[in-house]
Amino acid sequence: MREKTLNILRDRKEGYVSGEELSKELGISRTAIWKHIQTLKEEGYKIVSQKRLGYSLVSVPDLLLPYEIKKGLKAKILGKKIYHFKEIGSTNNFAIELARKGIEEGAIVIAETQTKGKGRLGREWSSPFGGLWIAIILKPKILPTQAPRMTIIAALGVAKTIRKLYHLDAFIKWPNDILIRSQLGTIRANGRMRKKEYRVFKKVCGILTEMGAEQDTVNYVVIGIGVNLNIDIKKFPMEFRKDATSIEKELGCKIDRVEFTKRMLEEIEDFYLLFKKRGFTPILKEWKKISATLGKRIKAVSGRRIIEGKAIDIDSDGALIIQTKKTKQEKILAGDVTLV
Amino acid sequence: MREKTLNILRDRKEGYVSGEELSKELGISRTAIWKHIQTLKEEGYKIVSQKRLGYSLVSVPDLLLPYEIKKGLKAKILGKKIYHFKEIGSTNNFAIELARKGIEEGAIVIAETQTKGKGRLGREWSSPFGGLWIAIILKPKILPTQAPRMTIIAALGVAKTIRKLYHLDAFIKWPNDILIRSQLGTIRANGRMRKKEYRVFKKVCGILTEMGAEQDTVNYVVIGIGVNLNIDIKKFPMEFRKDATSIEKELGCKIDRVEFTKRMLEEIEDFYLLFKKRGFTPILKEWKKISATLGKRIKAVSGRRIIEGKAIDIDSDGALIIQTKKTKQEKILAGDVTLV
Repeated sequence: MREKTLNILRDRKEGYVSGEELSKELGISRTAIWKHIQTLKEEGYKIVSQKRLGYSLVSVPDLLLPYEIKKGLKAKILGKKIYHFKEIGSTNNFAIELARKGIEEGAIVIAETQTKGKGRLGREWSSPFGGLWIAIILKPKILPTQAPRMTIIAALGVAKTIRKLYHLDAFIKWPNDILIRSQLGTIRANGRMRKKEYRVFKKVCGILTEMGAEQDTVNYVVIGIGVNLNIDIKKFPMEFRKDATSIEKELGCKIDRVEFTKRMLEEIEDFYLLFKKRGFTPILKEWKKISATLGKRIKAVSGRRIIEGKAIDIDSDGALIIQTKKTKQEKILAGDVTLV
Repeated sequence: MREKTLNILRDRKEGYVSGEELSKELGISRTAIWKHIQTLKEEGYKIVSQKRLGYSLVSVPDLLLPYEIKKGLKAKILGKKIYHFKEIGSTNNFAIELARKGIEEGAIVIAETQTKGKGRLGREWSSPFGGLWIAIILKPKILPTQAPRMTIIAALGVAKTIRKLYHLDAFIKWPNDILIRSQLGTIRANGRMRKKEYRVFKKVCGILTEMGAEQDTVNYVVIGIGVNLNIDIKKFPMEFRKDATSIEKELGCKIDRVEFTKRMLEEIEDFYLLFKKRGFTPILKEWKKISATLGKRIKAVSGRRIIEGKAIDIDSDGALIIQTKKTKQEKILAGDVTLV
């Protein structure tokens, strides 16, 4: 009902809607309308009220509010249920709790900031205001070994969204990062700093997939996605700055975060449905086209193993195949990869 | 302090210990002693108090209380922390919550009865009073694919305990059941029921291993173990009765549940430490000796696949290898196996 109230106000643009009109349209009392308006105001919507004229929506807050994301969202599964927090410890942790309580797949958890954002292997993930910190719950019928496939589906969705909306060169660094290739970098040459056409890859998004599973069944997968949207890189802790970028930094302007979130949910859902219908092969094909890893000489650290070689392929489980010697190949399921 | 109070009373056998003596020994007030005694009584300990004589422990309740299990327990990791419930929804669920909150490995959760005991793939698990319904939290450094190894380690521990304590023929049915082979069964021959030497295998224990994991790291494993100890099979729902047995039924008498629990924790810990030190090979070797599956003609249902053939081996991940035709082998990670 609150969502409907909001949408009527929204459709009237700058005009006024009287309490009586709203009350008639929605079939609830004027007191009930007044209460919904108060709640919307508390959520950050600027709504003015004028005697005899009624209510008017002046501005929508710069927040990733459920009503904003749901409006016109084409995704059918993803975003069916949306949980929104101004601040949370970790969206992944909250999503895991929901998944364990049996929530349907497609539910998402969004926070404006995270106080304990998680990276891979218990690392810290910086989540200042302005980014998109989201966790998506899926319940695919896959084996625990196949969970990396979900990371790949999500990565593909994020990269495609960045490419389509902003025409930036987004690439996927195996297994779980999205990098943007900038055309101009600064390099030190002959002891002096110079600007030069030099391609640099910087991280704009990281993905953390967690699962709850039995031996041969995945009960749920939670895909945590962090995208640096409207973020001043200086807000990041020192150690992350060098290799990080944001959409704002690359474009030189702030973008519409709600639009990004909607498009991203739609892209990920499209790939997820494609996977359900046709299996993993078409996903892998798309993925290889925008890989920042394939064909490159890399150093990979996976657990205690350190492997150097050329990244030559990804197998059907999403594992990376590395050619270490002319006749020898190694396979890793996940790890830290650096381009050599 | 409560544990110490109890142990002093226990050591005195049927004799009395005065409040003054306890107070001196433990360095706490007589009022504090009195409070501990009250709590112990509430937990089910029968303690009588006599003016001038003091307190005397008359009987210990037939419950799997932490003080009883900890007393003389040789396991160093398993059982370091014990959570005990007279009734709980599911020990596995509670253990998963603990694991997610960062509890150390080795913590265990025991319940006298479960109201929502879980079997594999969301099936129901009947947990009346008299059994052992326990969940063990471990944090091994393994890949998600290797989680079945933990089920095998637990199964081995349970089977060995049954064999050592009661000299029953306990076998492991891949992947997660313990069966007891009885020497005498009843068969229908020529239209009449006859007693005949006839080997039947009946289920005495089931194991449900659940994990929380990232792509390449297991965060925790919860091994749920249900053992039918002092249980009248008639307490089970009709559909489970035919294939189930209990230690009480096999032996014809009730056993000491605390003793069983202690020995089982010790056996599982021994195999777990062996695995940590020497890897999975020695575990697999032990396991093959008491497998009810290897060498048998079986039918296995794994997801949508139905495979018939001879179970010929277990691989290093714990997967079952089935010879389906002379030249063809299939591998399954988990599933429902029936002997043909």
